[in-house]
Amino acid sequence: MRATIMYGAGDVRIETVPDARLIEPTDALVVVTRAAICGSDLWPYKSMEPNETGRRMGHEFIGIVEAVGADVRKVKIGDLVVAPFLYSDGTCVFCREGLHTSCLHGGRYGSNDVDGGQGEAVRVPQADGTLVPLPVGKDNALMPSLLTLTDVMATGHHAAVAAKVGPGKIAAVVGGGAVGLCGVIAAQRLGAEQIILLDRHADRIAVAKEFGATDIVSERGEAAIERVRELTHGLGAHSVLECVGYEESTRTALGIARPGGAVGRVGVPQSEVMPAVIPTFFNNVTIAGGPAPARAYIEELLPDVLAGRIEPGRVFDWTGSIDKVPDGYRAMNAREAIKAMIEF
Amino acid sequence: MRATIMYGAGDVRIETVPDARLIEPTDALVVVTRAAICGSDLWPYKSMEPNETGRRMGHEFIGIVEAVGADVRKVKIGDLVVAPFLYSDGTCVFCREGLHTSCLHGGRYGSNDVDGGQGEAVRVPQADGTLVPLPVGKDNALMPSLLTLTDVMATGHHAAVAAKVGPGKIAAVVGGGAVGLCGVIAAQRLGAEQIILLDRHADRIAVAKEFGATDIVSERGEAAIERVRELTHGLGAHSVLECVGYEESTRTALGIARPGGAVGRVGVPQSEVMPAVIPTFFNNVTIAGGPAPARAYIEELLPDVLAGRIEPGRVFDWTGSIDKVPDGYRAMNAREAIKAMIEF
Repeated sequence: MRATIMYGAGDVRIETVPDARLIEPTDALVVVTRAAICGSDLWPYKSMEPNETGRRMGHEFIGIVEAVGADVRKVKIGDLVVAPFLYSDGTCVFCREGLHTSCLHGGRYGSNDVDGGQGEAVRVPQADGTLVPLPVGKDNALMPSLLTLTDVMATGHHAAVAAKVGPGKIAAVVGGGAVGLCGVIAAQRLGAEQIILLDRHADRIAVAKEFGATDIVSERGEAAIERVRELTHGLGAHSVLECVGYEESTRTALGIARPGGAVGRVGVPQSEVMPAVIPTFFNNVTIAGGPAPARAYIEELLPDVLAGRIEPGRVFDWTGSIDKVPDGYRAMNAREAIKAMIEF
Repeated sequence: MRATIMYGAGDVRIETVPDARLIEPTDALVVVTRAAICGSDLWPYKSMEPNETGRRMGHEFIGIVEAVGADVRKVKIGDLVVAPFLYSDGTCVFCREGLHTSCLHGGRYGSNDVDGGQGEAVRVPQADGTLVPLPVGKDNALMPSLLTLTDVMATGHHAAVAAKVGPGKIAAVVGGGAVGLCGVIAAQRLGAEQIILLDRHADRIAVAKEFGATDIVSERGEAAIERVRELTHGLGAHSVLECVGYEESTRTALGIARPGGAVGRVGVPQSEVMPAVIPTFFNNVTIAGGPAPARAYIEELLPDVLAGRIEPGRVFDWTGSIDKVPDGYRAMNAREAIKAMIEF
């Protein structure tokens, strides 16, 4: 089968790899129908040391179950399923608490004999705990929005939950990439009264406004903090969604939080230390978040996607076949595309 | 009147200063009956640059109202009152949310013509919003415990609330100073099933055990993290109360939090950056806390103190008159005393 392999920064290739197959009795073999390139795939695309064996890529996919192991009970052959970006058993202490990202028997795609999602098929471990069957056909028009449930929509929602968005509150979203845009959707869905997007790219800003952003701040650093203060009666935002992960964006996120407010961080942190935590302390700002337990959120968000109440699939502005995946990486990295979808 | 003035590291003097007096119509003049030395007073005691004018000290006190301004309605002359460690108006947007530490018209004792608490009398601004009358006499045996409501008991409670302590949870308290010991009380009061104290001083450990600590960890750094893991089935503590403020103690606090857990930080941070925030991110650990809104908590905690259900006053193991205050600083700084009470 064909799959996406990264060999170093800027070096993504489509190659023939051994066919995905069942190994454990709890596995399902999923033939991929749609996949996506994630903003987090761009971190190694920018910085990965050259490596001869390469790294299998992709963790956002939808597909059809072709085979299941002997212990799989819930997932059936022929099911169209959506896969959260990590697999999880659904039964351990953390899964029962809704924190599937810390599953004691969970893990990542693209490592340890688990295929990446940007390929023709994937062996999905812990299939019963991981996969969620979809009540639509594989070419349904909702497919882009359903695909966002694997990661970006769940992650935007997680940022909003961690930032304690609620009715009547002021939310600020730092970073208008696909996750930030889904954060705008999530903030509106949870009742925010004012939604401030911090970004400077026209394409993203246009989508954010369609999603419900009420104010745009294109300044950076101290000027951005000052501008948000002006927009919030000098007090700051109740809920800040940090959707980037750089030290600078984190500093901005912490700086625009209102006393007693919360920052939900979902951008993978690129620094071991967090800046500016003394004013954050004196303001009693809560810092929460991390990788989104997408498996837990799919059940909450799926009805809204199926009913068309939210349309996160609009973040996809690039579509191509698997052969075009290297170009999708290039386009996203160059900010010519917000997010790339792969059709099989 | 006499009051405590710090002129530099290690240089605390009792001097005669102008008598406290009403200035604003919202002031009360409080004649101090008890005061305390705070762990946070030791930060300047360790590091303050020599200064000729000095700094008025103290923010934990109980006293009798001797006079009130024309606009004071709730507080009456003759009331015995407890003062939270910051003053606040009780009516601004933040006070109404229970975050009196961010009061728009609040402030600190010992600056801007407001007296310090370690003196014979204090002009208390925003008296109606700040002071809480006590239904006991000034020499009541509960006085030490009532005095902790000004700061350390409220702060330990804030750490526990920020760390989301609840019934059946595992709490860990980093640092067994007066705040940490009150954190042990708070954790038990909120229903924690297991309470681990991280400290190595015999006097503090003895008090912590009386307050309900179930386990003591005297290791430091990685060894402490390892030991807490062993005590928690390898998972870490649900709720971590960071009661020190050093980068090293913060690193430990973050390291012993269970995935999905929370760290309540109340130790004043001594570093602008927070360490080890990448694993904290991947574990979805929430970091909350800051200065405790003692004014909000006094109403919740006072009935338990009056009924003797909690006895935070046991953290005081040094008592002296105002003349002895310099010795109280020395004893606390040398760790010969956990906490010093001043009787007037």
